[in-house]
Amino acid sequence: MSLKRLCLKPGAEKRLRGGHLWIYSNEVDNQKSPLKSFAAGEQVVVESDRGKALGVAYVNPNTLICGRLVSRDLDYKLDRSLLVHRLNVALSLREMCFKEPCYRLVYGDSDGLSGLVIDRFHDIFVVQISTAGMEAVIEEIVAALNKVFKPEAILLRNDGKMREMEGLETYVEVVQGEIAELSPLIENGVSLLAPLQRGQKTGWFYDHRVNRARMQELVKGKRVLDLFSYVGGWGVQALAAGAEMVSCVDASHFALDVARENARLNGKEDRFDPLHGDAFDICKALVAEKERYDVVIVDPPAFIQKKKDIRNGERAYARINNFAMRLLSREGVLVSASCSMHLQRESLVDIIRSNSRELDRNSQIFDQGHQGADHPLHPAIPETDYLKALFVRVLPVS
Amino acid sequence: MSLKRLCLKPGAEKRLRGGHLWIYSNEVDNQKSPLKSFAAGEQVVVESDRGKALGVAYVNPNTLICGRLVSRDLDYKLDRSLLVHRLNVALSLREMCFKEPCYRLVYGDSDGLSGLVIDRFHDIFVVQISTAGMEAVIEEIVAALNKVFKPEAILLRNDGKMREMEGLETYVEVVQGEIAELSPLIENGVSLLAPLQRGQKTGWFYDHRVNRARMQELVKGKRVLDLFSYVGGWGVQALAAGAEMVSCVDASHFALDVARENARLNGKEDRFDPLHGDAFDICKALVAEKERYDVVIVDPPAFIQKKKDIRNGERAYARINNFAMRLLSREGVLVSASCSMHLQRESLVDIIRSNSRELDRNSQIFDQGHQGADHPLHPAIPETDYLKALFVRVLPVS
Repeated sequence: MSLKRLCLKPGAEKRLRGGHLWIYSNEVDNQKSPLKSFAAGEQVVVESDRGKALGVAYVNPNTLICGRLVSRDLDYKLDRSLLVHRLNVALSLREMCFKEPCYRLVYGDSDGLSGLVIDRFHDIFVVQISTAGMEAVIEEIVAALNKVFKPEAILLRNDGKMREMEGLETYVEVVQGEIAELSPLIENGVSLLAPLQRGQKTGWFYDHRVNRARMQELVKGKRVLDLFSYVGGWGVQALAAGAEMVSCVDASHFALDVARENARLNGKEDRFDPLHGDAFDICKALVAEKERYDVVIVDPPAFIQKKKDIRNGERAYARINNFAMRLLSREGVLVSASCSMHLQRESLVDIIRSNSRELDRNSQIFDQGHQGADHPLHPAIPETDYLKALFVRVLPVS
Repeated sequence: MSLKRLCLKPGAEKRLRGGHLWIYSNEVDNQKSPLKSFAAGEQVVVESDRGKALGVAYVNPNTLICGRLVSRDLDYKLDRSLLVHRLNVALSLREMCFKEPCYRLVYGDSDGLSGLVIDRFHDIFVVQISTAGMEAVIEEIVAALNKVFKPEAILLRNDGKMREMEGLETYVEVVQGEIAELSPLIENGVSLLAPLQRGQKTGWFYDHRVNRARMQELVKGKRVLDLFSYVGGWGVQALAAGAEMVSCVDASHFALDVARENARLNGKEDRFDPLHGDAFDICKALVAEKERYDVVIVDPPAFIQKKKDIRNGERAYARINNFAMRLLSREGVLVSASCSMHLQRESLVDIIRSNSRELDRNSQIFDQGHQGADHPLHPAIPETDYLKALFVRVLPVS
């Protein structure tokens, strides 16, 4: 294999040696190996300043993260064979953890496939590629999926936000088979439908699976409010678990229509109450009407996209959790989640603390949740750990 | 109620107003209210420097934490009536979360009862008091337990380390009923026995319940190594969940005898392999013998007791996890726990990272556990959040 060399500056190999997979553009020795001499997506051998080979990476000369390690072994470059191997390794973790073939099959760096996400819905696979290096092997990815799974259908949801930075076009394309408007999945024993082509991201958020399972244990006979419900991942599982009534709040008519479809699929349409609109506005109105719920679920979209948004984002999390706490009945349960990588777990705890004092409540955080096993954490890459869920009992001060 | 006033220095009320319950001795205005004028355990009204009453606390003039808030409402002091109320509130959380009456009923500050821990084993209650303020109401605690539960027996395990600092004697006393050498409990559906009088702490560690439940899902047909097994909380639950063989390592013959009893109780004595000795020594020997296990559980005692021990303690965690990783079979699972409040979760993740590199492994942290719902976190008191469990799949580098 005759790959070009990407030479690092002195000391720049330390992070890679420590387990990380990323190379930043200011770490490259532009004298020895000018970044601009590489094509976007090209594979290279990464070398330390002393000429020690560290592994194979793919590069993009136009991005801050200009290289991502694909293997520490020079015998393996990112090709069909390595993809098949990595898919099988990823599959064995999911088969260890889940009964049904519905999960995130590949979670980027944590599965040794930086820039690639694959969600599985039985025999339908939704692929999301976010880097030029992965886009360069797109045919190999499809071939590897066929080799390991013989999929009924494969959808490329290549419309993520990172693609523009990588110089990639955005598109959604069914490259194999046919995909209906709604595709079935099973999560925590509940049958559900997800809009793979038209929905957010890959159509479904598997990451909260374990937190929704925990929630199911708490809602029997309860009145539940599900804020930012999307297609009912939380709300419909609450219904399936015996909730008396679930109000799903979302700004998208389409999402609420699918949520209703999911409620119907579970024979619970009569207990399903869609509330269309902005979650903040609806909360304000519900507070004014003195509505109360036994369980309120707060699972907003990422209010913090970038570091510079932390302050405003924390305020938004504080506001929505304040509303949620005011809508709770006595000894009610707040499920407060955040998918913002930049919001520290401690900050979310502190938001519970400050709201509790402001509203004169005693709060007990009786469970803390993380992303599920199909979103494993890479121990060297803190960015792979992003999801938080706090289960909070909110008591009157006594 | 005519309680003396404890006056704070300017600004010192801020933490209490923010939700915390502790007062440090350097925050007291010794001019207005000399600390030495209070008896250890005496209850007081806490006032800000401006004379604003903040609540009722009990004090100890001899300790760094000289006061602990028992109520923000001046109408409630710590007495039988408040204890009964707090026990009922604590009970409702446990009844919401657990089927069996076996749990930590009271977890100190998080249940509004600073200095008090009560573990429940069906109708037997084990009480641990760590402060002079709680010791002062010990008869009220027993009376309140009788009022709410009519216990079969009550044991005072007043032999914790904090008592000496508080000027309290250490003793173990059955104050009501009779308690056999081993008392039954049920955790995650498994029947077990705990040595309430002779065992560590209250005799059982309920805090890992949810992590042991997760472990149960991973061990069917597997060979399991349980380091620092104590009486088999992990190991015997692994056997009950279908593990092929479990080796329990502990330095205490007594603990291993009880573990064997627990294995027998579950009809699994033939699959139970006790290894007596120091866990580090035994690991070293097992590595030398090239023994391999599918699942290794590392749940050591707190290697870090005080802040000054952090560095040495982290080294000890790193060493034992290194051994554990070396003892894993291909694609094995490491369950790595720490009950050291001073070990940050990120530090434990980093120990996994550095050991993975050292041993040339790829690790995926596919689940993260916390203490169970009977050990709720008080959002203003980070010290109430201490337990960590990482579930790690350890792969060969490919």
